[in-house]
Amino acid sequence: MNAEDRIKVRYRIRATPDTIDAFALAVAVEQSVEVPLDVVRDAWIREHIVGRVEAVTPVDTQHYLVDVSLATDTMTHEGNGSNDAPDIAQALNMIFGNSSMHDRVELVDVNFPEGFAQAIGGPRFGIDGIREQVGAAKSRPLTCAALKPQGLPTAELARLCGVFARSGIDVIKDDHGLADQRYAPFAERVRACQKAIVEAERDTGRRALYAPNLVGTPETLAANARVLREEGVGAALVAPMLVGLPAFHELVRRHLQVPVLAHPAFCGSGRIDRALLLGKLYRLLGADAVIYPHYMGRFAWPEALCGDIARTALTPWPGIRPAAPVPAGGMTVERVPELVRFYGADVMLLIGGSLLQAGDARDPALAERTRAFVSGAASVMPQ
Amino acid sequence: MNAEDRIKVRYRIRATPDTIDAFALAVAVEQSVEVPLDVVRDAWIREHIVGRVEAVTPVDTQHYLVDVSLATDTMTHEGNGSNDAPDIAQALNMIFGNSSMHDRVELVDVNFPEGFAQAIGGPRFGIDGIREQVGAAKSRPLTCAALKPQGLPTAELARLCGVFARSGIDVIKDDHGLADQRYAPFAERVRACQKAIVEAERDTGRRALYAPNLVGTPETLAANARVLREEGVGAALVAPMLVGLPAFHELVRRHLQVPVLAHPAFCGSGRIDRALLLGKLYRLLGADAVIYPHYMGRFAWPEALCGDIARTALTPWPGIRPAAPVPAGGMTVERVPELVRFYGADVMLLIGGSLLQAGDARDPALAERTRAFVSGAASVMPQ
Repeated sequence: MNAEDRIKVRYRIRATPDTIDAFALAVAVEQSVEVPLDVVRDAWIREHIVGRVEAVTPVDTQHYLVDVSLATDTMTHEGNGSNDAPDIAQALNMIFGNSSMHDRVELVDVNFPEGFAQAIGGPRFGIDGIREQVGAAKSRPLTCAALKPQGLPTAELARLCGVFARSGIDVIKDDHGLADQRYAPFAERVRACQKAIVEAERDTGRRALYAPNLVGTPETLAANARVLREEGVGAALVAPMLVGLPAFHELVRRHLQVPVLAHPAFCGSGRIDRALLLGKLYRLLGADAVIYPHYMGRFAWPEALCGDIARTALTPWPGIRPAAPVPAGGMTVERVPELVRFYGADVMLLIGGSLLQAGDARDPALAERTRAFVSGAASVMPQ
Repeated sequence: MNAEDRIKVRYRIRATPDTIDAFALAVAVEQSVEVPLDVVRDAWIREHIVGRVEAVTPVDTQHYLVDVSLATDTMTHEGNGSNDAPDIAQALNMIFGNSSMHDRVELVDVNFPEGFAQAIGGPRFGIDGIREQVGAAKSRPLTCAALKPQGLPTAELARLCGVFARSGIDVIKDDHGLADQRYAPFAERVRACQKAIVEAERDTGRRALYAPNLVGTPETLAANARVLREEGVGAALVAPMLVGLPAFHELVRRHLQVPVLAHPAFCGSGRIDRALLLGKLYRLLGADAVIYPHYMGRFAWPEALCGDIARTALTPWPGIRPAAPVPAGGMTVERVPELVRFYGADVMLLIGGSLLQAGDARDPALAERTRAFVSGAASVMPQ
């Protein structure tokens, strides 16, 4: 990386015309040296390390877009032999550490120099890699279903997994509430569900991926990942904000060799632009597919935002693979045509509770509704 | 822990009188089983695992306090031999995972069963433990200063550290922007600053604690903690939301044997009540001292909130030590009397840039202003 490289950060700031310039400078200082400027006695620090206000653009009479550039030098490791590697936690710190405490400041975009982004890495598989693993043509959406509710014993969750796999679902994920509880402990559950996947594949010739939910401290996550490797599991589900973004990135890069679905739990609402956080940052940190609540489900996220998240996850980015957008949160089989019209084929459709409303794993109605989902997703023509 | 134990969570929800009851139930379901209730066919799951709405209390015509209880069973490890241990990431998930995505829901309080809280552990030292380590009487506030700005070379930061230690500061912390940058790599900086601390103690007979900033992925944090142990460093600074709350807890419990100051970077603003997050949760997860922006500094946090954070950090809690509140963010020597009137003696006063405005480490004015801070803190009588 070039020592002169700078990250461009865009904030949306509530301020008056007579205060915005001073406040923009205050944010640039807060996000870099965090001292009054008269304390910065060294010319190199003043020139290079202090954040620079690059532009201030009025949005309306009360809001401004403020572009600040920050030296990548402030966010890379020199010590520990890791030689100029981006430090994810420190990058977040410089981008929105202290300014996250200002009610009037929102983080709306971050642009990384190419080398910096590529050193972080992005998805190892991305939407195309997931397609390859399940043999899905590019002309149709991917499908996803969820094992729930928590409280069910392992055998019942595995039975559900088998029904979904035999009915043609591409990715079968744990409910994000499934952790390591006594009613379905992690290792036991992963073993049983993966067995159901393997048996379904043997019978149908179709490969589905099981994505167990990994949640816990870093040591627990590493132990969970070991279980996945031992059992030959094909995917993983992780909520990056829950485990922490730096822990998520390390888990993906160091411990997982399979596609990773990012769950939005604990992602908050609004102070960090959601297309930036889910579509861009989760992708940059290695999510191959990004789950988020679709418009008119259980969460009142605007339709335009859902489109933005999908576009951000898919948009070309040199050296960074596209991630699959996964609209969810109360979707139904009936909405599949509408979802495909909205997103096109480059999407993974996730239906959770609505499939289960048809019946439990022993009820043929569940397989029937699941097959209707799968064939619906395969037959709708994107417009 | 008792299998019947439940965590009590309080949300503040924006709703109308005719929608609040249904929405309160929806939140209780979202935070537990996350499926339509008709899918919950098992009576035990319905009785035990599904979140219970315990109370709905109107605040005003548009807002309600909603108390929901959640089974601790949903947040404890059974597998991996860890036998009923709380899972921090999963607890966050159950408490505010999906509901964090609702603009209309804020998390305002969490009450843990005693056994659950004590299994998490809280501060290992707390405010009294820090006092012991630096020999500070309970009648005076603790003092803290910061090494900054980033960009200074290691030798200069170490020189600053020496001036602060010789001038009588109790805890000398890295600026939270100091990471592992090439201008002052972590291991080199820690070694040099700790040397300055040891030399000052040898000359003055007074012990100060140096708190280097630990930031990075879990592996980096563990490596940083190793450097602290090797160099005999007396404290550490960590931003829990930046590294992730589960990673913070594991770092404190598994890798650090010294008091830990929690920095508020990336803590956001408002969707999780700040007294809850900083005063209660950071404390529960092991912070011995909690830094936050005081009223009338660079951040516009209300005076009442600052008092709430301090009270929450200090309030008696069976088996959980009190943590030191550390008001900061633009404090000055002149404000010491006012701060002590507001907080009393159970506080750690942190002055950063304002000390450095007196001069650099070679300028006697810096030591002079620092001594004025120290003697001011020691002489003001709490009221």
